[in-house]
Amino acid sequence: MILSLEQIDELIHAEEAADGDYIHLTSNETLLSPQARDVLASPLGNRYLLEHVDMRQDSPSRLNGFLYRGLDRVNAIERSALEVCRELFHAEHVEMRCLSGLHAMQTTMVTLTRPGDKIMRFGVADGGHFATENIIKLFGRTDCCYAFDRDRLTIDLKGTDEIFRRERPKLLYLDAMNYLFPFPIRELREIVGDTPIIYDASHTLGLIAGGQFQNPLDEGADILQANTHKTLFGPQKGIILSRNRELMERVSYSLSQGLVSSQHTASALSLFVALHETHRYGREFAKAVVENAAFLAAEMKARGLPVLSTKDGRHTANHHFFIELTGVTSASHAMARLLDAHLAVNRGIPFRNVDALRVGVQEITRRGYSHDDLRQIADWFEAVVLRGAPPEEIAPQVTALAHTRTDVLYCAPAKPAPAAVAAPRVQATAASASKRGQERWMEVRRVGVDFRLEGDRLDRLHRLGEISAALPNQTDTAGNLSLRDEAGIIVTTSGCYIKNLRGENFVRVERLADDGLLEYTGEGVPSSESLMHYLIYQQTDSGAVAHSHYLLTNRQAEDLDVAIIPPQEYGSVELARKVAEACKLRPIVYIQRHGIVIHGRDVEDCLGRLQAFIRHFEETHRG
Amino acid sequence: MILSLEQIDELIHAEEAADGDYIHLTSNETLLSPQARDVLASPLGNRYLLEHVDMRQDSPSRLNGFLYRGLDRVNAIERSALEVCRELFHAEHVEMRCLSGLHAMQTTMVTLTRPGDKIMRFGVADGGHFATENIIKLFGRTDCCYAFDRDRLTIDLKGTDEIFRRERPKLLYLDAMNYLFPFPIRELREIVGDTPIIYDASHTLGLIAGGQFQNPLDEGADILQANTHKTLFGPQKGIILSRNRELMERVSYSLSQGLVSSQHTASALSLFVALHETHRYGREFAKAVVENAAFLAAEMKARGLPVLSTKDGRHTANHHFFIELTGVTSASHAMARLLDAHLAVNRGIPFRNVDALRVGVQEITRRGYSHDDLRQIADWFEAVVLRGAPPEEIAPQVTALAHTRTDVLYCAPAKPAPAAVAAPRVQATAASASKRGQERWMEVRRVGVDFRLEGDRLDRLHRLGEISAALPNQTDTAGNLSLRDEAGIIVTTSGCYIKNLRGENFVRVERLADDGLLEYTGEGVPSSESLMHYLIYQQTDSGAVAHSHYLLTNRQAEDLDVAIIPPQEYGSVELARKVAEACKLRPIVYIQRHGIVIHGRDVEDCLGRLQAFIRHFEETHRG
Repeated sequence: MILSLEQIDELIHAEEAADGDYIHLTSNETLLSPQARDVLASPLGNRYLLEHVDMRQDSPSRLNGFLYRGLDRVNAIERSALEVCRELFHAEHVEMRCLSGLHAMQTTMVTLTRPGDKIMRFGVADGGHFATENIIKLFGRTDCCYAFDRDRLTIDLKGTDEIFRRERPKLLYLDAMNYLFPFPIRELREIVGDTPIIYDASHTLGLIAGGQFQNPLDEGADILQANTHKTLFGPQKGIILSRNRELMERVSYSLSQGLVSSQHTASALSLFVALHETHRYGREFAKAVVENAAFLAAEMKARGLPVLSTKDGRHTANHHFFIELTGVTSASHAMARLLDAHLAVNRGIPFRNVDALRVGVQEITRRGYSHDDLRQIADWFEAVVLRGAPPEEIAPQVTALAHTRTDVLYCAPAKPAPAAVAAPRVQATAASASKRGQERWMEVRRVGVDFRLEGDRLDRLHRLGEISAALPNQTDTAGNLSLRDEAGIIVTTSGCYIKNLRGENFVRVERLADDGLLEYTGEGVPSSESLMHYLIYQQTDSGAVAHSHYLLTNRQAEDLDVAIIPPQEYGSVELARKVAEACKLRPIVYIQRHGIVIHGRDVEDCLGRLQAFIRHFEETHRG
Repeated sequence: MILSLEQIDELIHAEEAADGDYIHLTSNETLLSPQARDVLASPLGNRYLLEHVDMRQDSPSRLNGFLYRGLDRVNAIERSALEVCRELFHAEHVEMRCLSGLHAMQTTMVTLTRPGDKIMRFGVADGGHFATENIIKLFGRTDCCYAFDRDRLTIDLKGTDEIFRRERPKLLYLDAMNYLFPFPIRELREIVGDTPIIYDASHTLGLIAGGQFQNPLDEGADILQANTHKTLFGPQKGIILSRNRELMERVSYSLSQGLVSSQHTASALSLFVALHETHRYGREFAKAVVENAAFLAAEMKARGLPVLSTKDGRHTANHHFFIELTGVTSASHAMARLLDAHLAVNRGIPFRNVDALRVGVQEITRRGYSHDDLRQIADWFEAVVLRGAPPEEIAPQVTALAHTRTDVLYCAPAKPAPAAVAAPRVQATAASASKRGQERWMEVRRVGVDFRLEGDRLDRLHRLGEISAALPNQTDTAGNLSLRDEAGIIVTTSGCYIKNLRGENFVRVERLADDGLLEYTGEGVPSSESLMHYLIYQQTDSGAVAHSHYLLTNRQAEDLDVAIIPPQEYGSVELARKVAEACKLRPIVYIQRHGIVIHGRDVEDCLGRLQAFIRHFEETHRG
């Protein structure tokens, strides 16, 4: 039966009302503040937001050759959110474009491993995430698991050392979805050398931000990734954080060029709000969460509920704990009865042979539940799970309590309804576009159509293109080439296929006219980096230039005589100027997040430098 | 600088106000109705929604062994949305869990190809999506491109035939992001035989739903996938539609077991609303969009703007068209000037050597812009792009028009603000959980701890587990095994590793007690499918049963003597009953979206049947 829009509206309101009748003790969900929630319905959600903000200039914004109206004020908020992340997580590089925690895992996995590579993960029976094994299979990777210390509910380092030596994984995920205590990251680092360690903190991200749980980046993990909607105040979304330039440039490139087009604008805004809330209120919140979890676990234990503990009696060091019902009753049955009492929990099998309820306190903490409330909740659990009390008699009491705890704490004070506030109007930028355009991008003027590269010069550039396109990251239409000509410079067209260049893939740039336009002859559209080539020839005596999309490894950055330039907008005048300037000093220039520029006396010289560069890559990186 | 929450609030409101000052002529964005937008901020967005609704029962809902409070009214809406999709797209199988259009592509790619497989796509210079090539590289696949007919802006069938024969791709994506006309799918199907064809309709999904553009499923494509926020009325999200059971069961399994955990609940609700809006208003809307695109293109052409056309003079058959500025002026420059005039368009290089503006009409159509408005827009384009008119003089006129067109049409009439409406309260379900639980799931009672499988029977089940776990889709903890015992049945525990079974991975199920509980002896938790095993032994004279996660191919469904059962909730009594019933008739039972159950006289007999099954798989599927 197909519902009407009116029926849908009624059903949604009814489900929302029902949601408010429960006390939510799930540990995988969060509670958004009004500000973080309202922004999800912003009309800005209709709009695109492409590229990482480090590469994204204000409107018009661009991704590669695609230009769109940018959201300048969103850029400002995003830059502030990056600062917040750096402070909260001690990270240098931040990606907030992933759509979910699992999408973050998919992103790091395809970026940092190749098919056939082995990945280390937690076994599902040791608390590992249910999805990791299948993602590894789907992506054509193989896997091995940590040895697990069941008594202490953490990694068995000795056993893991043996497994690591035997299996030689290329990447490690600390991907537990059921964990209660910190993992020995420093010790693991000793074992695995420089093999990348990725810590999935979906559950504990808010506790890490609040300084109440191990910060994996401080302890030696290379990447911290997570979804943003459990202990963090964020919407359903993903985040990746790191201090490692090389790994994160690769991650960002994968996202820009394949894994995400528009980051979902409204979700991104909601995450930015949540991060700022965490910056202001997160420490206090995280302390209360950890304290409440320990308190509630102890209260339940005191009432005879079989709270899972380590051999030495610890229940939890984070936001949740387990009630182990194996042999006592069926946990699914207990969970169904708790639901009938309007107490929402999860049931799972967190560890081998443990049929359990999972109880989390982050949501009731944000609602401001008191110790008395927690004691009351423990009483209800005892009644329903252990004493067979009729849940329908308890439900009204639970709902009554839930209805007294409807505030959201740890966020900005409530404001008048948005409709009542006159939104400040912003004046359109006064600067004329033509001027702004010319200062920011290369602009062109066609002065003739009749140009086609042929003969020996085409053959040589074809060869340079072939070699250049063989670099990793290089896709068909990425990069560009040029050589100096008596009448100007010969440069590839925008969108041509570098690996198989033909005569029609070139134009001749004649000169930079007095009005700032680059004049060219040819049928095609000059490469958006033509000005960069032009300026290099002006400022050096080079005869050929090759630009490829390639991301420099840390090793290469150390070993090679490369000038490094921070990220710049594609096709910008600024990029052209900086690269040309650097080319005066070095034969190879690396533009972060983007690629390399190699120049030489002539095509052969340029080719020689490119080949030496590739040899170095093959010797060090593949080795 | 880190912003305050108050500053963020002001910036967002200012950006929203600015957004309202523009006329949006981008073709990659949509306009949500108030209903589809408001629901994005629903508190239900805090909640999880796992599994496909075909496998998801009402609360408590489950994914594998993980149980959570379900959202029953959301399930009802989702089922209705599935019906809508079946009607609108003539699909049988629908997946709405993908997070974006690119995530849908990532999903189908990793599910339907293996590393090293070759995939056919559009070249970026022929309108192809910029991300496809890099996704293919990241996922370790290889690629080839269609031959393209530049004069007619469509696939060159003769050239593509040659390429197909030479390259033998395993999968075809019709992944154009810049296209104006239908593709020859029927003719392509003739060329490629039964190689799967996947059509990405991100741009035209709303037009297909409205019957105004080719429906790829009607013309022979296997899968239709898209994002939901261009011509469709939906939020930023993805969708996959098909009539092919086999392919879609694999896609759904990948999503459930790895690629998505919770579908983002609020986005999902918004998509459901949008689909219902399309069901009611979509045909009328799509007609208006196609008509407006043709009208505006003609008006622009008449004013001398170089509208891109085929050799025979057609501008567009969908919602957008291109203004080709190569050699006239720089399109980025023109675009920046249009933005200053408050006219938002995109700039790109849709085809080789075409530096163009892309102009889409779906948003202004939903706003109800008239033909006079479109003529006025064409005048403004002429003034800004061709006549050098100062954009800052035009901007106020554009904004004035935008401010008169603030309605959203093709949706339910506006309602009073939600705050004024008393949300209908819904009574908690009256049925007692204990009763409901027992009817729905197997419930257990431990009657002893002392059981451990050893010796010959362990060896044999170990071997059966090894073989069973070698099937595709099988992960460590999926599936379960059993054999008949004089004192009951020996069955694996929940969460044990099938491929390496040990003595402690079994319990003995003694009997189904009069109160409906399954009594067992052992330390572990009996497999959640224990009742299924129990009932099979009750109803057949089999001595061993193996259940593996495996998705039946269409060929196997035809060739083999398999009973097929529709999808059922994991661990449910209903599943157990249906499988046991089917086992009376057939040696192999297939539970759709889930796996196979093989039973035999004893373990050897069961193993023989399993091996014959695997041989058939290897001969037909890999061949």
